[in-house]
Amino acid sequence: MDSPLPHVLLTLAAVILLGRLLGRLLAGAGQPPVIGDVVAGVLLGPSLLGRLAPGFSSWLLPADAVSHLELLAHLGIVLYMFVVGLDLRMDALRGRTRSVLAISHAGIVVPFAAGVALAAALFPRYAGSAVDLPGFAMFMGVAMSITAFPILARILADTGLSHTRLGAMALTSAAAGDVTAWCLLALAVGTAHASIDAALWTIVLAAAFVLVMLVVVRPLIRRLLARLDDAAAPQSGVAAAVAGALLAALATEAIGVHAAFGAFLAGAVVPVNSRLAATLRNLLEPPVSLLLLPAFFALVGLRTDLVVAAAPGHAGVAVVIIVLATVSKAGATYAAARMTGLGTREAAALGVLMNTRGLMEIVVLELGLSLGVISPTLFTLMVVMAMVTTLGTVPLLRLVAPALQSSSARSTVEGTTSS
Amino acid sequence: MDSPLPHVLLTLAAVILLGRLLGRLLAGAGQPPVIGDVVAGVLLGPSLLGRLAPGFSSWLLPADAVSHLELLAHLGIVLYMFVVGLDLRMDALRGRTRSVLAISHAGIVVPFAAGVALAAALFPRYAGSAVDLPGFAMFMGVAMSITAFPILARILADTGLSHTRLGAMALTSAAAGDVTAWCLLALAVGTAHASIDAALWTIVLAAAFVLVMLVVVRPLIRRLLARLDDAAAPQSGVAAAVAGALLAALATEAIGVHAAFGAFLAGAVVPVNSRLAATLRNLLEPPVSLLLLPAFFALVGLRTDLVVAAAPGHAGVAVVIIVLATVSKAGATYAAARMTGLGTREAAALGVLMNTRGLMEIVVLELGLSLGVISPTLFTLMVVMAMVTTLGTVPLLRLVAPALQSSSARSTVEGTTSS
Repeated sequence: MDSPLPHVLLTLAAVILLGRLLGRLLAGAGQPPVIGDVVAGVLLGPSLLGRLAPGFSSWLLPADAVSHLELLAHLGIVLYMFVVGLDLRMDALRGRTRSVLAISHAGIVVPFAAGVALAAALFPRYAGSAVDLPGFAMFMGVAMSITAFPILARILADTGLSHTRLGAMALTSAAAGDVTAWCLLALAVGTAHASIDAALWTIVLAAAFVLVMLVVVRPLIRRLLARLDDAAAPQSGVAAAVAGALLAALATEAIGVHAAFGAFLAGAVVPVNSRLAATLRNLLEPPVSLLLLPAFFALVGLRTDLVVAAAPGHAGVAVVIIVLATVSKAGATYAAARMTGLGTREAAALGVLMNTRGLMEIVVLELGLSLGVISPTLFTLMVVMAMVTTLGTVPLLRLVAPALQSSSARSTVEGTTSS
Repeated sequence: MDSPLPHVLLTLAAVILLGRLLGRLLAGAGQPPVIGDVVAGVLLGPSLLGRLAPGFSSWLLPADAVSHLELLAHLGIVLYMFVVGLDLRMDALRGRTRSVLAISHAGIVVPFAAGVALAAALFPRYAGSAVDLPGFAMFMGVAMSITAFPILARILADTGLSHTRLGAMALTSAAAGDVTAWCLLALAVGTAHASIDAALWTIVLAAAFVLVMLVVVRPLIRRLLARLDDAAAPQSGVAAAVAGALLAALATEAIGVHAAFGAFLAGAVVPVNSRLAATLRNLLEPPVSLLLLPAFFALVGLRTDLVVAAAPGHAGVAVVIIVLATVSKAGATYAAARMTGLGTREAAALGVLMNTRGLMEIVVLELGLSLGVISPTLFTLMVVMAMVTTLGTVPLLRLVAPALQSSSARSTVEGTTSS
């Protein structure tokens, strides 16, 4: 088998089947179906399968096939974020812009500071080989402040919160916060590689891109849709919209902000109540969830080794990282939400939701690992933090705000769990 | 841009947009929408873009990104063939098995003989560097007798013939014939590499796989579906069915027959009128046509250089290949169809349909090129033959059997052109 196709087919089939099985089992523990896929990915990686059957594991997915799986995973994330954008009810946020900005930035500044403080303590033992303290500190600051936008979106969909005000606020805060975090990451990478110029360009271009999408493209699409016959719009518009989403993803990737944001923005500028948006959602969401996201979960699992984190020398550090990350992120978000007028429960729920780090975190960590900013061990410890905060989201959410969730879950959860 | 993602995103967007545009223009010339995508792929390859702007062309899709595009293309073909299998009305063939076998094998034996004869003439000038006459002749025989199963399926869908008896016969003949052709190909490759054993194993295992799918898996699925609540079946069965299709594709790929056949068989064993089949079709067909098949068309275009074929020394050979391929394939199919009782028109239409070579042919040719069996020039000439027979299918079909097509096209064509 020279071609990567058989390996990719087998990996996808394994994650899909195991993910469904685990999803059913974990549903009893209150976890949304997506967690089944995440756990399936980890079990098929070095944490379990790689240890039990290393030969089979490297035959299943040799190094060359991984880069192909990665492409599928990234394409899946791009399309999934496009669907999430299509689903974003911007009007749910009307009059709340200030509060979103306050929440998202409190949720960045405080964990960022915590990350910098942590970096000072971890530098001697856990820094990468190619970095000085300022670069390492900057990177750790960013790594602590990421919110996992796509997994957050999946959790909101799975728990039926997507269409609530809380869901819209969480998603938009995460999106706004992540654009800032990606800019900071560009700065951190710039600091590590002494090219501040490139980092500033990323910030300027990203802002310009967001502006163009909202001020130019959004009204244009509205006008085009108003002109076209509503029934004919999906027919002629679907291919153009998908191509547009791919191009927007390309633009943000070229700018230096993750491709997923461009796709998300492309979805967000399509009016949420239009037939075009509904057609695109129905067309893309089920196959992307079923076929492409498993590639991502396989990839995440492949790069996570839970056994390393459990070693005596490192387990304590892992706990410190998890506690610090959760307290700084959820605490700061809660405080900012309360200060901008949200109730105790909604603020607590928002804090818990923003603490989900998931896949975005891992993308950032991998960048740090490949640039020599963090050591492989710290990489694994940070990945464990990402896993724990992600797995903890739903149980904590049930704990702090049971009413919020169960009231809205029943109406929409069926449509999403079937995918 | 180190990652292949931007290149793949841009290529997909280009084929989707250009393909739609050309599809609309070519619709006037009676070509189904799929031809727009094929031509878009060729224009974006070395034939046009590579000549006009070689720098831009190699920036658009560098060598490293091609293998990633290839994976998407192959995954697209696997899923598309699964959908085609799901759509296969086996009952339309009841009592016609003998006729299908006669037609499919006449459509192989005669072009195979023509290919062997042609090979004797072409050997001195066009053979690859690593082959003797028997290996070259065997390979050319196979290359002349391939029918492009997936493009044939698209053409049948686009012209509304999928659900007619003619469509079912064409698809099943092509499928039956192609299994034989792939077995012959394994033999040819074995001859070229002196490992007849492996070729025989391929044949035995492929036959065993088909038998297991039809005799064991098919009744099993029927019984499972009968047991499950009909409404609940799609919910619980979709993920299992998709994973099953991926595993079946994997099995045939491992056996040495193309992955697409396993997926096709996996689709064919799901009862065509079940809710599960309908759910799977609706879930997969539109996104696969919209997003993954363009990757395939880009790949085909990338490997085709029409200008080489037009050079004075080669153009005559190209014409001989095209005429010989068409006359032997369509002629033999027509004769066999008439002899097994089909009417003149249906037999002629079947001959024309089986002459479509398209993408399967190119997969085979590429194998021959990479093994050193055919020269790069002969590769291009054979690709031109594949293109011409593919592009010629619809116009010839209109010519020989206008009534067959227009009568059935209207009812189903809308659903497929929107995808």
